[in-house]
Amino acid sequence: MPTRYEVIGVEGLPEIAAGHDLGLLIAEAAARQGTPLQAADLLVVSQKIVSKAEGRLVRLSGVTPSPRALAMARELERDPRLVEVILGESRRVVRHDKGVLIVETHHGWVCANAGVDQSNVDADTACLLPKDADASARGLRERLGALTGHALAIVVADTFGRPWREGLTNVAVGVAGFDPLKSYLGERDPAGHVLQATVLALADELAGAAEPVMGKLARIPVAIVRGLAWEPAAASSRALLRDPDRDLFR
Amino acid sequence: MPTRYEVIGVEGLPEIAAGHDLGLLIAEAAARQGTPLQAADLLVVSQKIVSKAEGRLVRLSGVTPSPRALAMARELERDPRLVEVILGESRRVVRHDKGVLIVETHHGWVCANAGVDQSNVDADTACLLPKDADASARGLRERLGALTGHALAIVVADTFGRPWREGLTNVAVGVAGFDPLKSYLGERDPAGHVLQATVLALADELAGAAEPVMGKLARIPVAIVRGLAWEPAAASSRALLRDPDRDLFR
Repeated sequence: MPTRYEVIGVEGLPEIAAGHDLGLLIAEAAARQGTPLQAADLLVVSQKIVSKAEGRLVRLSGVTPSPRALAMARELERDPRLVEVILGESRRVVRHDKGVLIVETHHGWVCANAGVDQSNVDADTACLLPKDADASARGLRERLGALTGHALAIVVADTFGRPWREGLTNVAVGVAGFDPLKSYLGERDPAGHVLQATVLALADELAGAAEPVMGKLARIPVAIVRGLAWEPAAASSRALLRDPDRDLFR
Repeated sequence: MPTRYEVIGVEGLPEIAAGHDLGLLIAEAAARQGTPLQAADLLVVSQKIVSKAEGRLVRLSGVTPSPRALAMARELERDPRLVEVILGESRRVVRHDKGVLIVETHHGWVCANAGVDQSNVDADTACLLPKDADASARGLRERLGALTGHALAIVVADTFGRPWREGLTNVAVGVAGFDPLKSYLGERDPAGHVLQATVLALADELAGAAEPVMGKLARIPVAIVRGLAWEPAAASSRALLRDPDRDLFR
């Protein structure tokens, strides 16, 4: 039997709004399309619907930009209220240039616009990343456990750019129920000594695996990863943040 | 019918050596395990077996390190012959520190050790990246087309580190038969104007999707991605190299 797994898009979710029971809506939609949730499923869920369910939306008409946001917005040729919202989500501006604002979020993610975006929301609204996407993932996991009786794994995913390589990829910004890193046995050096272990970012790879079925515009905001053996663990997406001291690419 | 696809590891390939007919060995192994190659399959193939089949191996005992390699190896506490090999594969050293050498390869990839490694080869041997992994992918695609009658897509993959995020991910270093980037319709700004299109690095996401079934140590060096609609195209992995002028993360 070859090692294999499947990635299944979950369609037919309604437009999500604050207070919606995301776990129930996902379980219902999966069942409705003939792929009910099963034991050991891992769900990749778009950050956007998690944020919407948690009411992480800001009305731009109610935002007063600071002098810093006004100055930066002029440079970037962006809406100063949106820049104000982005700065509020950021602990550090990494770079601003050519209309793009790269920041480090309060969570520690380095990404464009602090993950704040205006797709799939009305023109006066900006959608923020979940305040604590690990807590969001844990909550969803508990709700789905109660509804289905299965211990699932959850990835909350967003699409980020990266240095050196063209194109965005889907990555994990929140996890629950499994270890987002996977270690392989170390390689051996020429004298036969085991060198360092190789650590793979499994949660990011699975977030990326889900993207081709999820599409943009949140039409398919959830994917089921089925058949893969993941390591149950109480884990956090903070494991995916590289310690700056160890970051030789920086 | 939900959108879905499958990732299937291909086991049972022999130890690959220079001159082996990789296409034939992959087609045979896939058939032997009951998952023969089908129309529209996309194959993710480990760089390591491609390099071995192409004889991209260097005997360290035959390498004379340059003064530059000797100095750098002393700092890094690495084998100077290995450092010499890595420098020979590099157009630029991005950083060297704490035993790790980050370079830009002649292809343009920024990665540790120019992708040169010593896993799954004997102690006196270093394995290099394919000279032109797009050509490798095209050659494999043509051979598999002749053997199976199917037009497949190919990704040659390696595991690279990245800035800011912990853990390696599998990424594409060579492609054939499909567009490694996928564009979505642009978002609309508050006035209803379409902003820039969102471009996803599909080839990298699928390389990553394959990794969990491939494992390390080259025991499963090939995965079939089956059921996904990819865009047939004459394409190159160079599309995944970000223009430094556009790289705001740099």
